[in-house]
Amino acid sequence: MVLVDIGNTNIHIWIDGKTINKKSPEKYNGRVYYISVNKEKEKIFKKLNPDAVNLEKYVLFDTAYKGLGIDRIMACKSISDGVVVDAGSAVTIDIMQENRHLGGIIMPGIYAFKQAFGTISEVLQFNPDIINTFYPNNTSEALNMGSVGAIKCMIEKYSQNRKVYITGGDGEFLSRVIENSEYIEDLVFLGMLKTIKELEKK
Amino acid sequence: MVLVDIGNTNIHIWIDGKTINKKSPEKYNGRVYYISVNKEKEKIFKKLNPDAVNLEKYVLFDTAYKGLGIDRIMACKSISDGVVVDAGSAVTIDIMQENRHLGGIIMPGIYAFKQAFGTISEVLQFNPDIINTFYPNNTSEALNMGSVGAIKCMIEKYSQNRKVYITGGDGEFLSRVIENSEYIEDLVFLGMLKTIKELEKK
Repeated sequence: MVLVDIGNTNIHIWIDGKTINKKSPEKYNGRVYYISVNKEKEKIFKKLNPDAVNLEKYVLFDTAYKGLGIDRIMACKSISDGVVVDAGSAVTIDIMQENRHLGGIIMPGIYAFKQAFGTISEVLQFNPDIINTFYPNNTSEALNMGSVGAIKCMIEKYSQNRKVYITGGDGEFLSRVIENSEYIEDLVFLGMLKTIKELEKK
Repeated sequence: MVLVDIGNTNIHIWIDGKTINKKSPEKYNGRVYYISVNKEKEKIFKKLNPDAVNLEKYVLFDTAYKGLGIDRIMACKSISDGVVVDAGSAVTIDIMQENRHLGGIIMPGIYAFKQAFGTISEVLQFNPDIINTFYPNNTSEALNMGSVGAIKCMIEKYSQNRKVYITGGDGEFLSRVIENSEYIEDLVFLGMLKTIKELEKK
């Protein structure tokens, strides 16, 4: 079985438990399931894999959120209770309670924060780091607190002792900053697998 | 008496209690005091006002923060206890306790957040607004919470029931979002006046 997650920049592929990343769509053998937030790449992918199943059509997900991306839905679907964080170009924070999605937040990703500071003034430079002071005492610490610390502040505001599940490119780093959190690379694929299981039960 | 605050973009001028904004330095009559974070404009200003006094040389300020901008110092100096927020192109959050500066945070300004989201994806658009839901349920609410809400989260993390004094271009808006806060347009000038009083006592 092959699972494909077509994102804005990368295509993530899961083949029997192993994951790889590609920039362009490719042809796969066997049963192929996919989700996509990129219509251009999806079109090419569908031509190469005409029998591939778009799981967005079948997924059951309880939310009042209008326009929730299918990648966020799948990551959330992998858990029943807790906070799901996808730390990529943006950082999304979604709250799950008893298999219900309560709502979500979108923050700039860590790289986007760096870029934003650089646009304001060239002196506003820092390297994202874990947080080890409460009161920053230089520019670098002040910027780290105002970006990594702000992401931490928002996640903790919504987690309120619930477990935090983190995925995405900056996920491993962020899991070292956030208490009671776990980095899970395959969160989206776990949600896709759960959806396939539900589909097979019908 | 004339007070001049030469910033990166604008020059703020205080003349006997009235404030105006200019883009370029001008000549003033009477006693002129100034601060500057813009070396280019300061040079032109000094040529036009050779007797103007740079208050940065005289200000007394207790902090361990290395490289704290003179505008942030003056805004902080205007109070003894509480949190000082300057909401401009960046949002600075500084904590004062018994006339001592404990540390500070730098976040992107509201416009910088908007720009950062737009750079990630053209669908990530919103209009900054007051916050009236805890769980955002659409993209616009999610982005507002991830920017205005994140600034609120950080200010409240550091205020801990201390009063919040807000200045800067987005200060009036932000004061409507932050509890126990007050918008004071002239915070920097109040700090400059306090510095002049201290100078005259010597």
